[in-house]
Amino acid sequence: MSCVAEPRVLVAGGSGYTGALAARLVERHPAFELHGVTSRSDAGRALSELYPHHRVDAVLRELDLDRDGAVDAAIVAYPHGAAAPVVAALRERGVRVVDLSADFRLRDRDEYERWYGPHGAPELFGEGVYGLPELYGSQVAEADLVANPGCYPTATLLALAPLAATGSIVDVVVDAKSGVSGAGRAPTAKTHFVTVTENVMPYGVGAHRHMPEIDQELAVLGAPVTATFTPHLLPLDQGELVSCYVTTSEPWSDERIAAAYEGWARERPFVDIVAAPPGVRDVRDTNVCAICARADARTGKVLVFAAIDNLWKGAASQAVQNLNLMFGLPETMGIEP
Amino acid sequence: MSCVAEPRVLVAGGSGYTGALAARLVERHPAFELHGVTSRSDAGRALSELYPHHRVDAVLRELDLDRDGAVDAAIVAYPHGAAAPVVAALRERGVRVVDLSADFRLRDRDEYERWYGPHGAPELFGEGVYGLPELYGSQVAEADLVANPGCYPTATLLALAPLAATGSIVDVVVDAKSGVSGAGRAPTAKTHFVTVTENVMPYGVGAHRHMPEIDQELAVLGAPVTATFTPHLLPLDQGELVSCYVTTSEPWSDERIAAAYEGWARERPFVDIVAAPPGVRDVRDTNVCAICARADARTGKVLVFAAIDNLWKGAASQAVQNLNLMFGLPETMGIEP
Amino acid sequence: MSCVAEPRVLVAGGSGYTGALAARLVERHPAFELHGVTSRSDAGRALSELYPHHRVDAVLRELDLDRDGAVDAAIVAYPHGAAAPVVAALRERGVRVVDLSADFRLRDRDEYERWYGPHGAPELFGEGVYGLPELYGSQVAEADLVANPGCYPTATLLALAPLAATGSIVDVVVDAKSGVSGAGRAPTAKTHFVTVTENVMPYGVGAHRHMPEIDQELAVLGAPVTATFTPHLLPLDQGELVSCYVTTSEPWSDERIAAAYEGWARERPFVDIVAAPPGVRDVRDTNVCAICARADARTGKVLVFAAIDNLWKGAASQAVQNLNLMFGLPETMGIEP
Amino acid sequence: MSCVAEPRVLVAGGSGYTGALAARLVERHPAFELHGVTSRSDAGRALSELYPHHRVDAVLRELDLDRDGAVDAAIVAYPHGAAAPVVAALRERGVRVVDLSADFRLRDRDEYERWYGPHGAPELFGEGVYGLPELYGSQVAEADLVANPGCYPTATLLALAPLAATGSIVDVVVDAKSGVSGAGRAPTAKTHFVTVTENVMPYGVGAHRHMPEIDQELAVLGAPVTATFTPHLLPLDQGELVSCYVTTSEPWSDERIAAAYEGWARERPFVDIVAAPPGVRDVRDTNVCAICARADARTGKVLVFAAIDNLWKGAASQAVQNLNLMFGLPETMGIEP
Repeated sequence: MSCVAEPRVLVAGGSGYTGALAARLVERHPAFELHGVTSRSDAGRALSELYPHHRVDAVLRELDLDRDGAVDAAIVAYPHGAAAPVVAALRERGVRVVDLSADFRLRDRDEYERWYGPHGAPELFGEGVYGLPELYGSQVAEADLVANPGCYPTATLLALAPLAATGSIVDVVVDAKSGVSGAGRAPTAKTHFVTVTENVMPYGVGAHRHMPEIDQELAVLGAPVTATFTPHLLPLDQGELVSCYVTTSEPWSDERIAAAYEGWARERPFVDIVAAPPGVRDVRDTNVCAICARADARTGKVLVFAAIDNLWKGAASQAVQNLNLMFGLPETMGIEP
Repeated sequence: MSCVAEPRVLVAGGSGYTGALAARLVERHPAFELHGVTSRSDAGRALSELYPHHRVDAVLRELDLDRDGAVDAAIVAYPHGAAAPVVAALRERGVRVVDLSADFRLRDRDEYERWYGPHGAPELFGEGVYGLPELYGSQVAEADLVANPGCYPTATLLALAPLAATGSIVDVVVDAKSGVSGAGRAPTAKTHFVTVTENVMPYGVGAHRHMPEIDQELAVLGAPVTATFTPHLLPLDQGELVSCYVTTSEPWSDERIAAAYEGWARERPFVDIVAAPPGVRDVRDTNVCAICARADARTGKVLVFAAIDNLWKGAASQAVQNLNLMFGLPETMGIEP
Repeated sequence: MSCVAEPRVLVAGGSGYTGALAARLVERHPAFELHGVTSRSDAGRALSELYPHHRVDAVLRELDLDRDGAVDAAIVAYPHGAAAPVVAALRERGVRVVDLSADFRLRDRDEYERWYGPHGAPELFGEGVYGLPELYGSQVAEADLVANPGCYPTATLLALAPLAATGSIVDVVVDAKSGVSGAGRAPTAKTHFVTVTENVMPYGVGAHRHMPEIDQELAVLGAPVTATFTPHLLPLDQGELVSCYVTTSEPWSDERIAAAYEGWARERPFVDIVAAPPGVRDVRDTNVCAICARADARTGKVLVFAAIDNLWKGAASQAVQNLNLMFGLPETMGIEP
Repeated sequence: MSCVAEPRVLVAGGSGYTGALAARLVERHPAFELHGVTSRSDAGRALSELYPHHRVDAVLRELDLDRDGAVDAAIVAYPHGAAAPVVAALRERGVRVVDLSADFRLRDRDEYERWYGPHGAPELFGEGVYGLPELYGSQVAEADLVANPGCYPTATLLALAPLAATGSIVDVVVDAKSGVSGAGRAPTAKTHFVTVTENVMPYGVGAHRHMPEIDQELAVLGAPVTATFTPHLLPLDQGELVSCYVTTSEPWSDERIAAAYEGWARERPFVDIVAAPPGVRDVRDTNVCAICARADARTGKVLVFAAIDNLWKGAASQAVQNLNLMFGLPETMGIEP
């Protein structure tokens, strides 16, 4: 493909759902070389044993900074809090990092500590570029530390960006629905099949960690509001839908909405503006965010529905999209829509 | 059980999900006698053939007004529009009717015709008592024609009633989630397993038939607002959750909310005020509505989550609850929570 | 209902799926009084907190032999191995016991220890009556210690009993399919929603604990064969189907099969002989076993399909059926089909 | 990629599940050009409207033999019976065809007509090469008409081939489990979500169309037996598992089984011999067949479990594998495992 050496990419923390998928995407990527996949809990096991369907033969191993510090880039998929020290160690050795945790997303340290506890690398706090490439692509391209957004913020911010940019958002209710993979691989009473099947329930009501992230970024986009955000757990594996109910300062017609969204999406290959409200199956196993926005003639609100795959656009494939930008590659390489 | 003859109850339209369940509930009811079950499409087949798990042996047969007009009461489970003439014919013969369709729920005939087309028994239009027993129990007790509410209105109105009564609802967003049985028994592309599994999608956005019913009854309860209502189809069979985001004219504390809801629920055996947001499994196969209401400290909104079983409280068991009241029986008989 | 005191029934081990359901069935039973529900792991919590849909208010508490030893009967729902000592202690105090574990099902102690380890009450080993009431109802009626069968043996033995009785079974393959509730409440990688949904896989191949139980009882019934038994885990909650492929010593016609099965089922209120192969939904939340048996004209084998609800007929409601017999009550009381 | 023109491939019948997937695989294939996609029922609609997740923009159109007869190859995805005349017309114009229907799989015309009715192109009956590339790759390479196998035969024959080749199969029971996509796109009572969820049931007992196909090919492979075959419908979308219970003329040790299967699989890139029984998720969205074979020490039978994705290896990707061979391309091109 190229006479230049391919960037070598490490996946640190490959035994969880998002890390394992990141490893698969890097391994099949035409311009990256998968340097290795680390895991604290499952070192010694083949990734294909944990996730046969990913068909990645790499054997999980302990992180070895002497060896791993020499890679060109790393995707870090550690839990919140545990990620920061690893990111710091990799950055010290000059490794460019996309971090899937929340450790470098927030700008307000008090807010961070309220939700996640003490930060593990305070010297780097706030140094990450917020890695939502549809909004901050040029900054990502020059970043050495990218904070990959949370899955709910990804869908919500893409859903609201064109409206927010006009300054007309007065109030917003975000009712989010997620599949169980969003809760991670740890077996708990909440993720037990019997708890989830034939059920739907709200969780984290009034107190979900993605709230400050959503509000912080909405303000950046031009909507300094406190969103009402409630996630719900659904009996499905991958997929996330946000239903946004927006009160605007002035009425928006369907035509104006369509113009704003379609114009905005034109240069964004992973945003699909669709006529009918999307289902999450429409974007499964893709890096696409499908968005349908409409005026509600009865109430004057603007309704926006956005669907993503929480493991892909909400985490692993968005990390690859960020890596593509960081290495000057086509944004869609290896994750074509 | 009694030396007085048990009221004989006809179920008209027993081949659909709600009619079949109504037949089962009537057959096992300690004070009713199941007179018969009719069906246009499946006459001649045993109900147990269509729905083995209901274990009702009755053979479906054509409606025969000469014979069926002599019963004491009927539950009519015909499609919207087709119900009205049957209800009228039964009423003419003195039969007390609980109608599961929308034909007698609305008060504004233009609104009815806009959503459902011409009405099949105009002389009776508006004559039905709105059969939400928690709100209109005493009227139901004296009614000869009860319009059983829709499933979404049932959950939404119970969720909002205590707030609405105070006159403080300024705006409300209702994000509703329903299992597939709510779409009925007809096989369509939308109800195909492959369409639904691992999916979630909004439907009827800005144009769902339950909207005017919700607004009409909210106004009666003290909240003359236009609700923003969006239902979503979920990969589950029975169960419905409404997530209500309420803007109030003044702030409500958690204490005030709890007092209002618990006081209101005290005399209502089928309303459960619960501390944690309910899942629909919690109320499956019951006539219960589980409600959790909270202030959102961040935004000042009141959040109310209500879960019902759409086939039970949203249709068939609520019909039995209405029948109980109409015949002076304990409200909970045969459908104990 | 009666001028005699109702038998008081203890449920020991009520925090698991089967114990909790047993508590619900006993609490609603017209002739039993629920004395209490014990739990080692969840003492102090209300059963309704763990299982809202059961709607049982009892608070779980530690077993207290002084107090609990005075009841008339107990359903013990402890794990295999842990059950035996509790059963022994209750028996010592004269309590009649239905034990849901495997501790008193097997007759061969070596076989028991091979699968379950050392037995916790060797003096009682082999003393339990095998509590499959359709086969051993009269022994159950006089028993003080009933070993409630495993879910797979229940379905398999009922499926094969009429054939086995004729002595004509030469070989049998049992391909079993079970919902996830059969794996119990403990959250594990195997019961994680993401592992199970959109999946099906065999487990315990060649080495499942129910094998010796099936073979032991098939021999008692007249079929001294080693069954080939393979269970599969399915993406559903409750329900179990066994597909039995039987080689017989002589050909059986459909007529002969029908005569044998229907004659046998006539006096067994919980056995349904059905014309079309049953689905597990047909028997959900019931004590019924639905059986369809047919000759395979192409191969000469007899095919038998049997469906049960693993939590009901496979465990908790069968325990109540046994209790009914033990106390001289109608077999179907409280668990009517 | 090449200075030679890419073969142009038509997909005839692209509105069903398998045809639509075939269109996607051809469109993304590095060496094929998707000439067009036809549909009788949905002409005029974009494929992306019917199947958004496939992300294929082609607009479905009527078959036009003048235009479409000029392509190099066609995948025909018509219903059984309707396929034959279309295949004949394409063959007449020199188009090489892979047919997904059963019309050219069977060798015995009486048998064909018994299951499918009169054949639509009798002059071509029996002319198709049976397109299971792992078994008949060299014949496929030279064929102009390839009969793509049924999904159940694909899994069953791959599961049994190494055993059958030794001539030691005396008897075989095949218990098959399939997701709902195998039943096709037509909405029926059987494919309604409410029928399928939380259910499992046998179907086609003693009379499934894949029986003669399995027996015909088993005989070719060296096992002239009548298989006992029973499929079951499961609550999942894509995926198929066959559990094979084989009686052999002599005992097979685990070592001998492993040697036979691993040796056979070595040159077959889409066959995975796995140590633990596979789940269907392991092969989802791939052309892989995962096989686990073991001796049952208790009964002496050989147990073989094989998992495929019914839409991929069971239909569309296997068609592409066949096309690859027909055009001298690497077998795995465009469908890498």
